[in-house]
Amino acid sequence: MNLDIISIGDELLIGQTLNTNAHWISKEMNAIGFAIREHLSIADTAEAILGAVENALQNSDVVLVTGGLGPTKDDLTMPVLNSYFGGNLVRDEQVYKHIEEIITSRGYVMNQHNQDQAIVPDNCKVVHNANGTAPGLWFEKDGKVLVAMPGVPYETKAIITDTVIPWLKEKYELPEIINQMVYTQGIPESMLAEIIADWEDGLPSGIKLAYLPSPGRVKLRLSMVGKNRSTMQSIVDEQVELLKQIIPDNVYSEESEDLGELIGALLKSTGKTLATAESCTGGYVSHLVTRVAGSSDYYKGSVIAYANEVKIAELDVKSTDIEQYGAVSQQVVEQMAVGVQQKMKTDYAISTSGIAGPTGGTDEKPVGTVWIAVATPDGVISKKYQFGKLRDVNIERAAMTALGMLRSCF
Amino acid sequence: MNLDIISIGDELLIGQTLNTNAHWISKEMNAIGFAIREHLSIADTAEAILGAVENALQNSDVVLVTGGLGPTKDDLTMPVLNSYFGGNLVRDEQVYKHIEEIITSRGYVMNQHNQDQAIVPDNCKVVHNANGTAPGLWFEKDGKVLVAMPGVPYETKAIITDTVIPWLKEKYELPEIINQMVYTQGIPESMLAEIIADWEDGLPSGIKLAYLPSPGRVKLRLSMVGKNRSTMQSIVDEQVELLKQIIPDNVYSEESEDLGELIGALLKSTGKTLATAESCTGGYVSHLVTRVAGSSDYYKGSVIAYANEVKIAELDVKSTDIEQYGAVSQQVVEQMAVGVQQKMKTDYAISTSGIAGPTGGTDEKPVGTVWIAVATPDGVISKKYQFGKLRDVNIERAAMTALGMLRSCF
Repeated sequence: MNLDIISIGDELLIGQTLNTNAHWISKEMNAIGFAIREHLSIADTAEAILGAVENALQNSDVVLVTGGLGPTKDDLTMPVLNSYFGGNLVRDEQVYKHIEEIITSRGYVMNQHNQDQAIVPDNCKVVHNANGTAPGLWFEKDGKVLVAMPGVPYETKAIITDTVIPWLKEKYELPEIINQMVYTQGIPESMLAEIIADWEDGLPSGIKLAYLPSPGRVKLRLSMVGKNRSTMQSIVDEQVELLKQIIPDNVYSEESEDLGELIGALLKSTGKTLATAESCTGGYVSHLVTRVAGSSDYYKGSVIAYANEVKIAELDVKSTDIEQYGAVSQQVVEQMAVGVQQKMKTDYAISTSGIAGPTGGTDEKPVGTVWIAVATPDGVISKKYQFGKLRDVNIERAAMTALGMLRSCF
Repeated sequence: MNLDIISIGDELLIGQTLNTNAHWISKEMNAIGFAIREHLSIADTAEAILGAVENALQNSDVVLVTGGLGPTKDDLTMPVLNSYFGGNLVRDEQVYKHIEEIITSRGYVMNQHNQDQAIVPDNCKVVHNANGTAPGLWFEKDGKVLVAMPGVPYETKAIITDTVIPWLKEKYELPEIINQMVYTQGIPESMLAEIIADWEDGLPSGIKLAYLPSPGRVKLRLSMVGKNRSTMQSIVDEQVELLKQIIPDNVYSEESEDLGELIGALLKSTGKTLATAESCTGGYVSHLVTRVAGSSDYYKGSVIAYANEVKIAELDVKSTDIEQYGAVSQQVVEQMAVGVQQKMKTDYAISTSGIAGPTGGTDEKPVGTVWIAVATPDGVISKKYQFGKLRDVNIERAAMTALGMLRSCF
């Protein structure tokens, strides 16, 4: 079964809004067995919407449309779809009540815009939006389905999770799809390809392999489509085991790319605690740890020591070592890790100190030089890395590498 | 002049990689005067690539393609384009030398994959890739241009900035495009639309208005296309001034959505310093501040106090107040802000304490309850907010709102 995703909104085309909807929807639809044929982002015009909808319904079985269902004048999706499917606009009392509840709970009074959002086409099924006021619209024509949803990501997510997935599963018989990821750290893509070339050539014909590089990691994806999930999974598992024998130290997970989650699970299952002391990563390691629900069970906190005086006063780093070796040095980064470990009385601690850029580099320590330390119950380990020139990428690489170093301590 | 963006890669369609390239490219191309007609994401198959390229070249003047130019077997873009444009594959010595430099500087030896990346079509202009090994390819046909680039974001960025933009500007006479943003905080989209309805109805006909809601903010965009930039800008400026008279307290910027940058500029220009003390935002405020280049000039650091004992020991929060009022309270959040301000000897300090969710809520303090305080040279201010149920969104809203509170102190 093919599925198209259409995202409507000038804000996407002029680069003001990142299309996270298409990404999330793809993941969900792929997981239940749809082959996503295309993502298309188009302008807020009746002509573009109509053209895209016609084309998508010709080529795919299911079309999911986001955007242009809001309460303001630039929202054209509903009138265009209503006229395409030949319906009439009527007020839906259930939708009206839901909107009223949301608006009054926020302490506002219903205005005309809010009232207008209860007007919907009479030839579609109205889909409840648990997280917002604009309902989803489920149209059917010639055995095909088109669902229109608002563009606000957490509203779309609620509509898809609560209703669209169950309804699609009921309507279609879908194949099983396996996308087994293998997450690696420590080898660039081209070198990895060389090391695993024989393994790649020997893969069974039903398996498709892809390389996905990102800062500090290369992800490998083994895909299969078929009817029997358990048979396919065991074929794929066998290949993953062979791969892990070739690069045992580089594979860090097969379940999750999210090192924050992986580390959380390790800390939780062993009953250990963590603190961080960050300089160049400026809170990003802490953010990756705390964005995981339940992290307060094992994470105590962090000292972000951007200024040297904070390193000295809060983390007991010796000022003489900062003078002699510099803030970006093995001596300082190790003292930072041990300092926060002792201060917050944790089992583990991570620290980072480096030159994120674009300025601050020297001949001896160019932009991209980062020292990372991990304090463990058995002592402290540390390592120097040479990343690139881009500030954002360096912060991400340093944080990912730091979490990877902690992971390998378990 | 129309422009299409084609993103190639199964990882986009199955939702494993977020398409940041299309977003960034759109912004750059819109800024130099192109009208972006479509973003299309397609599979790594010769058929899909060929179909998309043919369609795009029929409808647009310029087509920018990313992905599928890497060194591994799943990369099909180059052979497909080579055969579409009728060329032959040959080795480019300059490209070879550049690849050799990169590979050896990382301490590796050239392998077959690296060598193969110097093989390019002989009927295109080869575009230098400052940040990676795969070159860009510039094809021309019937007055139209197609540029193929690798999918790694910082490589694409270098190719577009260094070469594609200058070459496109030279080849085409482009119109001026104005996209004036107005960033607001504090009013939901539907209420904002009502408050500014008369202003919206009175906008000159050449101006197009769009509403873009995101967690904690609503962005308004006023767009115009024409020949004379300064005339258009003054028409738009006049409308923005009228708007600001209607909602003076809600407009926080017309230049940048990035509150981290805005605050950095304010602190820098006034010679003031900042520290943060974060609980529920877990380092995200600090990350937003430190991802700005040069932030070490005004940012001293943070105490991320996830555990109550860290709030007490590191931020001098009174344990009796935590017992009496709870960690999520005015008393505690104000003490956190003043505690870190005094400890790190800064002019300003931000603190957050809340229940990000999904668990931890009570009847009195449900998930989404967040206290935020700002310590200034003249005392401390604080406010309680009620956000929603989603952890990620709550963290983002709380951090954005905290930065907004600090901004309004200037």
